[in-house]
Amino acid sequence: MKVYFDNAATTAMDDRVIEAMLPYMKTHFGNPSSVHSHGREVRTAIERSRKKVAELLNASPSEIFFTSGGTEADNTALVCGIESHGIQHAITSPLEHHAVLHTLEVLEKKGAVKLSILDVNEKGEIDLNQVEELLKANPKSLVSLMHANNEIGNLNDLNRIGELAKSYDAFFHSDTVQTMGHYVHDLKSLPIDAIVAGGHKFHGPKGSGFLYVRKDKKIHPFIHGGAQERNMRGGTENVIGIIGIAKALELAYEDMAGHQSHIEKIKKHFIEKLVQDIPGVEFNGLSAAMDKSLYTVLNVSLPPSPANRGMLLFNLDIEGISASGGSACSSGATVGSHVLRALKHNPERDSVRFSFSRFNTPADVDYAIDKLKELYLVEA
Amino acid sequence: MKVYFDNAATTAMDDRVIEAMLPYMKTHFGNPSSVHSHGREVRTAIERSRKKVAELLNASPSEIFFTSGGTEADNTALVCGIESHGIQHAITSPLEHHAVLHTLEVLEKKGAVKLSILDVNEKGEIDLNQVEELLKANPKSLVSLMHANNEIGNLNDLNRIGELAKSYDAFFHSDTVQTMGHYVHDLKSLPIDAIVAGGHKFHGPKGSGFLYVRKDKKIHPFIHGGAQERNMRGGTENVIGIIGIAKALELAYEDMAGHQSHIEKIKKHFIEKLVQDIPGVEFNGLSAAMDKSLYTVLNVSLPPSPANRGMLLFNLDIEGISASGGSACSSGATVGSHVLRALKHNPERDSVRFSFSRFNTPADVDYAIDKLKELYLVEA
Ligand SMILES: Cc1ncc(COP(=O)(O)O)c(C=O)c1O
Ligand SMILES: Cc1ncc(COP(=O)(O)O)c(C=O)c1O
Repeated sequence: MKVYFDNAATTAMDDRVIEAMLPYMKTHFGNPSSVHSHGREVRTAIERSRKKVAELLNASPSEIFFTSGGTEADNTALVCGIESHGIQHAITSPLEHHAVLHTLEVLEKKGAVKLSILDVNEKGEIDLNQVEELLKANPKSLVSLMHANNEIGNLNDLNRIGELAKSYDAFFHSDTVQTMGHYVHDLKSLPIDAIVAGGHKFHGPKGSGFLYVRKDKKIHPFIHGGAQERNMRGGTENVIGIIGIAKALELAYEDMAGHQSHIEKIKKHFIEKLVQDIPGVEFNGLSAAMDKSLYTVLNVSLPPSPANRGMLLFNLDIEGISASGGSACSSGATVGSHVLRALKHNPERDSVRFSFSRFNTPADVDYAIDKLKELYLVEA
Repeated sequence: MKVYFDNAATTAMDDRVIEAMLPYMKTHFGNPSSVHSHGREVRTAIERSRKKVAELLNASPSEIFFTSGGTEADNTALVCGIESHGIQHAITSPLEHHAVLHTLEVLEKKGAVKLSILDVNEKGEIDLNQVEELLKANPKSLVSLMHANNEIGNLNDLNRIGELAKSYDAFFHSDTVQTMGHYVHDLKSLPIDAIVAGGHKFHGPKGSGFLYVRKDKKIHPFIHGGAQERNMRGGTENVIGIIGIAKALELAYEDMAGHQSHIEKIKKHFIEKLVQDIPGVEFNGLSAAMDKSLYTVLNVSLPPSPANRGMLLFNLDIEGISASGGSACSSGATVGSHVLRALKHNPERDSVRFSFSRFNTPADVDYAIDKLKELYLVEA
């Protein structure tokens, strides 16, 4: 049996997304910037995709910019948000994805911005009072706090953070890569200046993404070149990526509540079985609190076990279970998770992130539980 | 009849490229950074693609970085080349693509670099003596000169420019977007520090590209995030883009001489017919000189004609002929071509770029000539 429990790293493409992309591989190959018929048919498809994304997010098409992924979108929001709005100080958390953390660290090192990194408790929670103190002390701030953490699933309250940022006239960016396509984002009511998406986190193609920037917080381009994306991003458009991410978002919104309840059942089932069958199991961050965490992520801390120490992911992989020790982007490296480190996670215990999609079934959970029992109870 | 003569803007994908990509849309969907089986099979495919590209260019896999296209690759080479190597002065030409020109102009505006823009004559030729004077006067220089111009096809001698740059210890970047896949680049013998590619210019996917940076001229990343591309470019890889560009380059190299002679025949035929049938026709830049210009590009300047003035591309489009007035990326705008402007092109004359691929036939030329005759001789 093969079980894919690494959906926070990436998801399988939906067949309907592939279907939507294929004509733009096989037939409609024009450059969308070309004014002739070959170009115009592709331009139309791109602008239809932009309109679709904007409608779903309750935004204007002129606020949506397609990028090569979540990382480029985060870089653009931060680098150009800071430059375009005279930002002198940035506030973020140690639990942010490296697309945010490394970008801000580089900007700090260059002297482009002063950087404040919030404290977090052992559950990964931030304190909004600290955010407010920092905003008070530092005019011309940018706040970058993710919607949901990709490793432990902790959800931030974008509404409250946004209101706070607004009241201090700060630029508020949120890395929404893990929630886009899984939660509704209503940008008319959310007080937020920039959010981002990566298509491959919700059954779209890798290498696709977009950046939303609120109309009255315009920024300049990050990648310079041709006049594409209304002069906001040079480079011939990744046409199939744009078609794909828009289609994937459309499908996600079509039955978001259905997907959510399907996946929540799987997550609940997993938590119950783990608590029942694996003595000493714990959960990292807020990931076991259904209402405070991303429903697609469960981060499990297993009791110390010499047979599995440092080998747990490998042992699961042998059994056909794909899961992750942290974010995929750093799991090639052996440096471990900066998120679990910030939570002062006990290094004696092995942690594993199981992350779900609408393609998972309860049988996947039962299989994983069986294997975890074999790995942990044989020894006990 | 439909004739596609805008291959310098973009090309149709080769069916074999699509075939190579499909399994990575339908089946192998893992994140290449994931260490489990789903991830490893994709990692293997990416590294095989990198090795293939490196072999074809006679480079090392560690010198090849996949990007979202030619524009991002140019931006990376320039922004990070300048920062990483303490460059204080850049030399370029007014005929460069905006991916180079705008990037350098922004860097100049920010005070990151002093910028020298070379003179060109009315054929678009630069003078290497001027390059040498500038190198002599400015230690710590970067030279950015394209291999072939995308509008008028003029070829630069990368070997001579590279030797000159080397002798003054300058960093030499060349925008090779228009020649990659159409000419052999042997990076063991070429004295060049950075070149770039965009897959869609040689029958690969849009949104794919790569940057070559010579081993001993390492630069830091442009997009910050995860550890992808050996820490040189954050962001989950555009897997199908990478598979696609490598396959397209492989196919290009498999029969490059064959494609070249096929396309050269088409271009020659076009030139002969034009000279024979359209009195007063001229050619912009060096595009009619077979040995001094890109074999895929012919830039035609037509005699003043009230009936076609400003309407030529539109009139051709009505007849099913897709051609271009300049680079696609700016043709949406009505600003005209910065290249033709630099050549002091007579604004009374209409110019059109016809650009070819191995999918064109001599019959395409005959059809276009018929239509041009109708447009220009009816009136005469
Ligand atoms: C010479 C040249 N450089 C750079 C580019 C930019 O490449 P891309 O649009 O694929 O990013 C192009 C084509 O658009 C080009 O012709
Ligand atoms: C929270 C978060 N931000 C940013 C990213 C980066 O997105 P991408 O890899 O698609 O560029 C990811 C996923 O990798 C993520 O989980």
